[in-house]
Amino acid sequence: MSKKIGVVLSGCGVRDGSEIHEAVLTLLAIDRAGCVAVCMAPDMELAEVNHVTSEPTGATRNVLVESARIARGNIKDIAGVTAGELDALVFPGGFGAALNLCDFGKVGAAASVNPQVARLVREVHAAGKPIGAICIAPALIAAILGKEAAPTVTIGTDAGTAAEIDKTGAKHQDCPVTEFVVDQKNRVVTTPAYMLGQRISDVATGIEKCVAAVIAMA
Amino acid sequence: MSKKIGVVLSGCGVRDGSEIHEAVLTLLAIDRAGCVAVCMAPDMELAEVNHVTSEPTGATRNVLVESARIARGNIKDIAGVTAGELDALVFPGGFGAALNLCDFGKVGAAASVNPQVARLVREVHAAGKPIGAICIAPALIAAILGKEAAPTVTIGTDAGTAAEIDKTGAKHQDCPVTEFVVDQKNRVVTTPAYMLGQRISDVATGIEKCVAAVIAMA
Repeated sequence: MSKKIGVVLSGCGVRDGSEIHEAVLTLLAIDRAGCVAVCMAPDMELAEVNHVTSEPTGATRNVLVESARIARGNIKDIAGVTAGELDALVFPGGFGAALNLCDFGKVGAAASVNPQVARLVREVHAAGKPIGAICIAPALIAAILGKEAAPTVTIGTDAGTAAEIDKTGAKHQDCPVTEFVVDQKNRVVTTPAYMLGQRISDVATGIEKCVAAVIAMA
Repeated sequence: MSKKIGVVLSGCGVRDGSEIHEAVLTLLAIDRAGCVAVCMAPDMELAEVNHVTSEPTGATRNVLVESARIARGNIKDIAGVTAGELDALVFPGGFGAALNLCDFGKVGAAASVNPQVARLVREVHAAGKPIGAICIAPALIAAILGKEAAPTVTIGTDAGTAAEIDKTGAKHQDCPVTEFVVDQKNRVVTTPAYMLGQRISDVATGIEKCVAAVIAMA
């Protein structure tokens, strides 16, 4: 049986959803490893941002429906997914991870998390299955597991974000874009991607290594 | 100077815009080759399709603004781009290539083409610079250049689509997903991607080869 790797999306586009390059590179790394990606997202609204102007439009879009664009329609509501059906869980980044899946992007360490996302992360962590988090998504993992498990994570080298991560109880570790950080005890693997990188090829290198490490632990 | 490779997007999502995996894999192949991607799209409306249900919503979205999601905001209106500033031009697929950039997806060989897209393809072709087309996008190239240049292209093995391509004056050649077809005289390179492939890893292999061949000719 192929390993099933859950991929939690948060919309479609870096400024209000999943960072598209990171999400696609995650799916590529999973498929190239002979594993099966199980795409999912919460059924909730996001605040739409125009990606030419970077300005909010005032309109909303549905996170699950927008995420389906990246998943080519093959997507589940995260509310129906349990840890038992997965071997691992990976979170691509993008502002959606910090504005839709939780509100770390607005309030930092005091973030509250979408209840279904928090539930699934806690289930997967409790089952000893690995969790990968990319770009800003490690802040989401810190917001969920910081107090109870103090995971070591990276979002690159941004001091302000790192300080907020440390306030959750998690521990931030600086890391270059083409590398990744492993917390063996918590089975959490993180890589900076576009929180630090400028080129898609560098981001791809870090994500390939991150996903490979997650799959090796799964 | 790095070679500049134009990438023409048609929205963001396989059912009403650019196929996202194909677009990202194109950008990755360009960056890994040490070239610079110049993303562009026409400023026009598309008919929005819900990617969970595959049903039209009745609403419209702007092709340039949606394409900016894939380009992380770094995108130009194709109306302002000339062949002189590019070394090559690549078209990812998705229904957007056959419904927004032209209407081949509705009317087949009788397709009319967005005037700015047709202008830029003719300019690039006339300058002897290479053109890559992925998935259904070779049908767009056939609709533009079929009568005047009879390019040989592939969209994989779909007989109905191949017959419509032949009616434009172009010549269809069957090809597996992990390979590509080169028309040396016209400097046109095509690969089937998701017109034939089921797995992102297979699609990636074909796109990597297609983009490499385009860059080698640029």
